[in-house]
Amino acid sequence: MIDLRSDTVTKPSQLMRDMMAKAEVGDDVYREDPTVNELEKYAADLTGKESALFVTSGTQGNQAALLTHTRPGQEVIMDEDAHVFVYEGAAISAFAGLQSRILPHELGRISLDVMEEAIRPDDVHYPETGLIWLENTHNRSGGAVLPLTYLKSVKEMADKYKIPVHMDGARLFNASEASGVSVKEISQYTDSIQFCLSKGLGAPVGSILAGSQAFIDIARKKRKMLGGGLRQAGVLAAPGLFALRSNKQRLSEDHKHAKRLADAINRHTDLSVNHKVETNIIIAETHLSSRSASEWVHLLSEKGVAVIQYKPQALRFTTNLDVSSDDIEKVIDILKECQ
Amino acid sequence: MIDLRSDTVTKPSQLMRDMMAKAEVGDDVYREDPTVNELEKYAADLTGKESALFVTSGTQGNQAALLTHTRPGQEVIMDEDAHVFVYEGAAISAFAGLQSRILPHELGRISLDVMEEAIRPDDVHYPETGLIWLENTHNRSGGAVLPLTYLKSVKEMADKYKIPVHMDGARLFNASEASGVSVKEISQYTDSIQFCLSKGLGAPVGSILAGSQAFIDIARKKRKMLGGGLRQAGVLAAPGLFALRSNKQRLSEDHKHAKRLADAINRHTDLSVNHKVETNIIIAETHLSSRSASEWVHLLSEKGVAVIQYKPQALRFTTNLDVSSDDIEKVIDILKECQ
Amino acid sequence: MIDLRSDTVTKPSQLMRDMMAKAEVGDDVYREDPTVNELEKYAADLTGKESALFVTSGTQGNQAALLTHTRPGQEVIMDEDAHVFVYEGAAISAFAGLQSRILPHELGRISLDVMEEAIRPDDVHYPETGLIWLENTHNRSGGAVLPLTYLKSVKEMADKYKIPVHMDGARLFNASEASGVSVKEISQYTDSIQFCLSKGLGAPVGSILAGSQAFIDIARKKRKMLGGGLRQAGVLAAPGLFALRSNKQRLSEDHKHAKRLADAINRHTDLSVNHKVETNIIIAETHLSSRSASEWVHLLSEKGVAVIQYKPQALRFTTNLDVSSDDIEKVIDILKECQ
Amino acid sequence: MIDLRSDTVTKPSQLMRDMMAKAEVGDDVYREDPTVNELEKYAADLTGKESALFVTSGTQGNQAALLTHTRPGQEVIMDEDAHVFVYEGAAISAFAGLQSRILPHELGRISLDVMEEAIRPDDVHYPETGLIWLENTHNRSGGAVLPLTYLKSVKEMADKYKIPVHMDGARLFNASEASGVSVKEISQYTDSIQFCLSKGLGAPVGSILAGSQAFIDIARKKRKMLGGGLRQAGVLAAPGLFALRSNKQRLSEDHKHAKRLADAINRHTDLSVNHKVETNIIIAETHLSSRSASEWVHLLSEKGVAVIQYKPQALRFTTNLDVSSDDIEKVIDILKECQ
Repeated sequence: MIDLRSDTVTKPSQLMRDMMAKAEVGDDVYREDPTVNELEKYAADLTGKESALFVTSGTQGNQAALLTHTRPGQEVIMDEDAHVFVYEGAAISAFAGLQSRILPHELGRISLDVMEEAIRPDDVHYPETGLIWLENTHNRSGGAVLPLTYLKSVKEMADKYKIPVHMDGARLFNASEASGVSVKEISQYTDSIQFCLSKGLGAPVGSILAGSQAFIDIARKKRKMLGGGLRQAGVLAAPGLFALRSNKQRLSEDHKHAKRLADAINRHTDLSVNHKVETNIIIAETHLSSRSASEWVHLLSEKGVAVIQYKPQALRFTTNLDVSSDDIEKVIDILKECQ
Repeated sequence: MIDLRSDTVTKPSQLMRDMMAKAEVGDDVYREDPTVNELEKYAADLTGKESALFVTSGTQGNQAALLTHTRPGQEVIMDEDAHVFVYEGAAISAFAGLQSRILPHELGRISLDVMEEAIRPDDVHYPETGLIWLENTHNRSGGAVLPLTYLKSVKEMADKYKIPVHMDGARLFNASEASGVSVKEISQYTDSIQFCLSKGLGAPVGSILAGSQAFIDIARKKRKMLGGGLRQAGVLAAPGLFALRSNKQRLSEDHKHAKRLADAINRHTDLSVNHKVETNIIIAETHLSSRSASEWVHLLSEKGVAVIQYKPQALRFTTNLDVSSDDIEKVIDILKECQ
Repeated sequence: MIDLRSDTVTKPSQLMRDMMAKAEVGDDVYREDPTVNELEKYAADLTGKESALFVTSGTQGNQAALLTHTRPGQEVIMDEDAHVFVYEGAAISAFAGLQSRILPHELGRISLDVMEEAIRPDDVHYPETGLIWLENTHNRSGGAVLPLTYLKSVKEMADKYKIPVHMDGARLFNASEASGVSVKEISQYTDSIQFCLSKGLGAPVGSILAGSQAFIDIARKKRKMLGGGLRQAGVLAAPGLFALRSNKQRLSEDHKHAKRLADAINRHTDLSVNHKVETNIIIAETHLSSRSASEWVHLLSEKGVAVIQYKPQALRFTTNLDVSSDDIEKVIDILKECQ
Repeated sequence: MIDLRSDTVTKPSQLMRDMMAKAEVGDDVYREDPTVNELEKYAADLTGKESALFVTSGTQGNQAALLTHTRPGQEVIMDEDAHVFVYEGAAISAFAGLQSRILPHELGRISLDVMEEAIRPDDVHYPETGLIWLENTHNRSGGAVLPLTYLKSVKEMADKYKIPVHMDGARLFNASEASGVSVKEISQYTDSIQFCLSKGLGAPVGSILAGSQAFIDIARKKRKMLGGGLRQAGVLAAPGLFALRSNKQRLSEDHKHAKRLADAINRHTDLSVNHKVETNIIIAETHLSSRSASEWVHLLSEKGVAVIQYKPQALRFTTNLDVSSDDIEKVIDILKECQ
């Protein structure tokens, strides 16, 4: 089975497993795991932040950020397709007591005018605007990269109103690799940033939340409340460190594969990829297809290709570390057969 | 000053004050206030529900309904201009832990297809859809009335998914009066309904939440938690009962006034009323005006007419019990002067 | 029926009703109700605080205070019989997300050593101590008055740790009257204070929350979220103001009645009042009685005296504005008959 | 350094690391990790429950249980030293909105009368009692084991009131091993049970939550919201499975070590172990010592023995997998030197 459902499905390589088996460990609740400490230091440096925190998932990093930046009854400005709104079980409201002020967007970008107008004035009827939320790359826009100029403008506007900016960078390294902009350049326009070790980078488990020292000190307590205080977490940090050091550059392979595949989909099938493929995600729409999205999923599955139905009329293909150039050619052949 | 800011500004009449002063009272936390009991019985009958609860505001009725119907981490489907989303300080998320799934609408009506598509399938990533929310009349659409056929369709769809329906009927009697449809006919398509005694009906304080006996039994406890368990509440229930019995029919006066005023605005000013005026609210847009919304508010205020700025480029005029036909003519004269 | 269940059951006098009927009113959400404004100013002056807020119940004042002082995940230090822990439906945890750190006490007083030891040190496992809570008079200790020296010591200790102090003064005026200490002297040792207009003072509905201007500005928004933003609230503020101005001194009558009654209970029945009766509450224990608490409630009820069962083996008698000296003598006669 | 601070500090053995490195894995969010599935099946069988869930910590298992069993505004009955009250950052109130009804206890056991009296009757002022919480072994009572007869009585009483029972069995296998009662016999008196793989059993990370299928289905979603939805979690499940299969019996070694050590403490130092040492935890009080608890911690640390200060006047020694019989003798020698 060639698995294109997500970049979360990759399995740790032998080298990564070796790192894991040899990891120096300690009790991380006591801050004594040297490998976790090394990873957190490395991640802080990489993002240009004072401090970083290892968390078990992007969701946990996002929730810890929300719990740290805000108070219940505030509003968080975000695009209407944000992962935190669509896929995190409403934890933003259930645990952090926040209202998601979702706004229309294009490729993850909200018009600055619309964003500014959404900031609530002081009035007894209104929630206070507590946070601005960005997602980069933007999953539901087919892995679109937020341009640096956009980030800069958002941050300047946010600063004017003294509102912090968080970036859900689950696929931050895809954004960096695709745009040739360093992670540090991106994260300079955020107050906090989360990125995943377990997606394109291929680690089995884990994400990072980075920010100021004061921010991370509080987030560490919120992580404990979420049940994310681990013991010998070095066994996860070791493959995470390895992934971070070794697997960034190769994301360009995934991006090349995605472009190649998207072209083939548009050329050889009645599926339509209507977005520019910048990174490793392809949204293929079925509006013009003779098959429904679920029929496509079944058919491809029978032929050995796993994809997911994404929206009622779309499929998502996600290239990843475990899918080679040969695999991509095989998928293209299968797609041709499906005509 | 002719006050058109809201229908909440009306002052109790002498007759109403007399009712209040003579009200038979008791301790309502012990359920011993006969006037409250009478009002709750009357309101239950009027809405065709098993039971009703006196609350101190529409917001309190809405929040008690949310806390009773749902669990934290659920999603509530509503239109993107709903009062509960825009004007209730995000209490829906802060207290009830709910995510507002706001959807585009026309005149308070969400397309049924869009609504049905927004109901979440069972998936570990998704919040569960816990409630469908309607607002009637729809404040931010200029007091639009939801048609009975729409309510029926929504309820049928909701029943198919076993999702309850709540109506924020802060201006329910305006809807009933304007459409000639009884309150009971409207409320039959809801599981719970809230209406205000203090808006068009003219009572000084209070609203009603109605629903099944089991629903109200729980809502009563939620009201206590919100601090809405009152003692000799009969002093508020008495004017409320009076308002309910005496001031429903006269809402048609407010509606006539609003239509007359809207016509005049369109005819004699560079403000634009772009919606059909069905009830007592007029949204006058300033897009084509030489004055900004805030300039209009100031100018009218100087001339003795109070209105509110509603959206960045709109004013709201709300006719009400304390504004007579003569007052409306005066306002029209003043508007003419403003040209 | 002579009603000794609570001091909440009193009915407004004719004079009070007249004040209500004549009250000058406005829309208090817009801050335009002159009577509410007058009451809030009066209450602020009385407590020596910068600002005050009219709320519909003690519970609402307490909850607004919690929501304003704290953040979810903090701990509030209080005695284990505090009203906010026992009788407010766990709203402290449900809405404000707080953990109640209940401590043993005598007459509402927690040993200062125990209190100080309960303040949490900084540790990733621990909630932060966010507030210290006092109740004065202390309901479940039979209306005990907290001595001024105790208040001073608590405040000094709290200041050392930079933890604010709130007083639930539902029966604050009983405390003041009984101890001959002014309300202002008491409230100087608090950061915020709540008192009820509807208990001993005899108003039909309402309480006051007082504190700094910044505190009240936020509490006002929390009140709105709780559904406590009222419209022509002057109709409640007027009897409240009247109660505050006219009914403070006469609380000493209630206290005299309570002492007289407690003596008679101990002398003429097998019920035991084991606490010093300082104010208007009597806890009469049934441990040594031939009748159970519920049997006593029924028997007294049949004979025309209403009391409540308080704990599994106790009754509560509460003297109040509607119970005269003659009534007390009648109750004593009835108690004698019960032997 | 001989580390007796906790049983959480143990480092994975080479064999365990090998299991980890060879673990068969998949994406557990898609339920495709065979090792996680095997562990969850094994744990369900062991506890006699229908289903089980791998979580990253005892705190996460406890919080997921709370979120699944209860609704905000309910009360959870527990002993006043419960881990969930003392050490979980008030997440029980912050996330689940619950009030902790803490009760006095002896060795983790609450008197059944006291427990039954704490169950709230139906009243508008009261929170509903939603859950009864047991901790076994009981950490702050020095690892005390709850007797089977106690568990049975609690469950019978809980059933009478239709209240579910959860057991925080972070050290469940210590309880089982010490009492010679199987885990299944213990868990039969619970509706849900959590146990840790990372304490006495020696796995690097992880715990299990077990219960009915319906319970676990919901808990799985709550785990996702807490950020505990992992990807290739098999790398943690493999050492967990190994720990569960291989390290249960050897807990009796830890218990023997603890008894030996406690005897020596009482014999050779002015510290006092005042509880029966049933499992692997020793609480040594400093009331009668010439040194304070913190002086003891420093002194022992200098001499190569790590312990923690537990309460203001106590130390905790915890025997564990990484502490051999020889180590215990060394510690005893060091303690003798300290006289």
